[in-house]
Amino acid sequence: MRITRIEAVPYSIPYRKPLRFASGEVHEAAHVLVRVHTGDGVVGVADAPPRPFTYGETQPSVVAAVCTLFEPALIGLGLLEREKMHARMNRTVGNPAARAAVDMAVWDALGRHLGQNVSALLGGFADGMRVSHMLGFDTPERMVEEACRVRAEHGVTTFKVKVGRRPFSLDVAVCRALREELGDGVDLYVDGNRGWTAEESVRALRAMADLDLLFAEELNPADDVLGRRRLVRQSPVPVVADESATRPGEVTRELLGGSADAISIKTARTGFTGSQRVLFECEGLGVPVIIGNQIDGQLGTACSVVFGAAYEATTRHAGELSNFLDMSDDLLTDPLVISGGRLPVPAGPGLGVAIDEDKLAHYRLDSPTGPTPGARPADRRPGAASPTTA
Amino acid sequence: MRITRIEAVPYSIPYRKPLRFASGEVHEAAHVLVRVHTGDGVVGVADAPPRPFTYGETQPSVVAAVCTLFEPALIGLGLLEREKMHARMNRTVGNPAARAAVDMAVWDALGRHLGQNVSALLGGFADGMRVSHMLGFDTPERMVEEACRVRAEHGVTTFKVKVGRRPFSLDVAVCRALREELGDGVDLYVDGNRGWTAEESVRALRAMADLDLLFAEELNPADDVLGRRRLVRQSPVPVVADESATRPGEVTRELLGGSADAISIKTARTGFTGSQRVLFECEGLGVPVIIGNQIDGQLGTACSVVFGAAYEATTRHAGELSNFLDMSDDLLTDPLVISGGRLPVPAGPGLGVAIDEDKLAHYRLDSPTGPTPGARPADRRPGAASPTTA
Repeated sequence: MRITRIEAVPYSIPYRKPLRFASGEVHEAAHVLVRVHTGDGVVGVADAPPRPFTYGETQPSVVAAVCTLFEPALIGLGLLEREKMHARMNRTVGNPAARAAVDMAVWDALGRHLGQNVSALLGGFADGMRVSHMLGFDTPERMVEEACRVRAEHGVTTFKVKVGRRPFSLDVAVCRALREELGDGVDLYVDGNRGWTAEESVRALRAMADLDLLFAEELNPADDVLGRRRLVRQSPVPVVADESATRPGEVTRELLGGSADAISIKTARTGFTGSQRVLFECEGLGVPVIIGNQIDGQLGTACSVVFGAAYEATTRHAGELSNFLDMSDDLLTDPLVISGGRLPVPAGPGLGVAIDEDKLAHYRLDSPTGPTPGARPADRRPGAASPTTA
Repeated sequence: MRITRIEAVPYSIPYRKPLRFASGEVHEAAHVLVRVHTGDGVVGVADAPPRPFTYGETQPSVVAAVCTLFEPALIGLGLLEREKMHARMNRTVGNPAARAAVDMAVWDALGRHLGQNVSALLGGFADGMRVSHMLGFDTPERMVEEACRVRAEHGVTTFKVKVGRRPFSLDVAVCRALREELGDGVDLYVDGNRGWTAEESVRALRAMADLDLLFAEELNPADDVLGRRRLVRQSPVPVVADESATRPGEVTRELLGGSADAISIKTARTGFTGSQRVLFECEGLGVPVIIGNQIDGQLGTACSVVFGAAYEATTRHAGELSNFLDMSDDLLTDPLVISGGRLPVPAGPGLGVAIDEDKLAHYRLDSPTGPTPGARPADRRPGAASPTTA
């Protein structure tokens, strides 16, 4: 059960349709697959999606953090020495996606070693989650069309609407069209990715006061400190802190500072170990949580549902688990399926998923070294700009 | 791995020397042994110490809660459906020791089933904890003598001094004598078990300002709300909330209300699952924790060290792990040994301990029904006032 090697494989899979939002846009899933190898041959896997516009990480920075900082710190530790691992990884600041992927790959390996699903090891509350689908910037017509399609094809009835454009009336029109076309049977909430000022946010929420929104997430910048507090005081719906409150200490500051009413938990940035800490803190403080999406592929989405299904508090609201629908392909041998508005926890030990090695070979950006575990340097050099063909 | 039966066996083991403190005194360990049986023959065990003066529980109330409320709610659930178990147990309020013992017995069974130590499953940070020894009411001479003896015999250098007597000068004299006799090489803190008023507490702390105390715990009643806040503002040492802040919501109220600076975690009242929640909440809020003692025997102490050793934050301070030294006997096959001021996590799957069935037969207060699992009614009738002889 001891860690012998940690791989970081950069890969890129194109999106069928780019996702656009206030802080950026995504055309390809340029992520890093992290694999934790153990002495007895068990391998755990997880995904690191770098988000430079949110956390400053890049594909090369994730590879470097995993291979030059975390791997040497963790080699030789047992899979159950989790708190020791984090004490060592905590000597490095930042790098949340890299750190989270290592944590979740260790949990996957542990689950496989014990023959247990990680969701059960974490808490075992439910066997799946309701799904919330994210709608990126577009015209009201096309966003309504997408929502109707996702509802028809997957049974999804909760939608997170990207807002934060100027003038804010653009986004108000979208939300109004969604409510009018989809009716009262759907849940709607909005995510501004810090695109508005506090003043715009308050005015936009007032203009949508009759739309029965569930939440309003990150409408304006967290560093707009007093503006955020004014927004929270005046907002008719709970204000969700996402990228402004990732670590437990940040969660405390935002909540106790009156800058948020609820917290988005993303396993892609806090893993399972850190997400559990954020969740239990929020539970203790009596604050709602949402399972968010770091524009995850299927592996990252599997991690989100594994964590979210494990606890009562995380299953109260639909989880953001459908982003992979916009990708042209993925890495899992058995694709995730959203049906009846619900995503089940993948069955089986660990995360319950397996990587399709042919697909990984096709989409990886480095030069694979083949099956020789010792020949590692080439594994560590991200760079090629386009996917190689298998 | 499914739960088939939960036993609750009342027993009593006399103390060699009674423990006296502001809220009560203890002459015997009149506890309840809780055993969770599973379909594949694995049995998990934990101890429930009823503390009527703190939580209102009694030996019969623990037996009744386990057998009439919790057992029917949990039978048929798998050992990894932990959050479902708690959702069901949470339909019953109160009964913390009964609930915690069921939780920890489930973890013990899970660890045995998986072949892993529970401390590793929880976090795996360390393999033991430094020990803090509790000194009950007596004369300064005898309390110094006990401290010197425990230091000489077990290497313990942290002492929790019971205070809360009137006049408070009695206790100030004890603390001063301890500091003078034991020198600067020991850590001292005080626990008032709500015995003083806020005014007495402030005066007593002022009178001990030169004694370098680590903490001051529950000096005055929590319902003395403004008095507690004044004490926290004026105290030169962090004020620890113990029995006033057991559930996460209470922890939030006490900390955010300015009525405490630190939190005592006791596995005997929050089990492992609830203790993890309190710990992660305190970590997120940046608040120190202490692993406390609910006047535990060796089984309860094993649970405390299993949890406390699992995390960095719980190992920062010595844990209260030595109370069993005052008991005339105990139930474990291999007694815990404190040496060099340290208690190791018992090695092996689950909690790493085993019950000596002959001793249990000797000290149990009900009529054992022998090995037939079906014949249960007599198991459930606590009552006989004195131990039977084997």
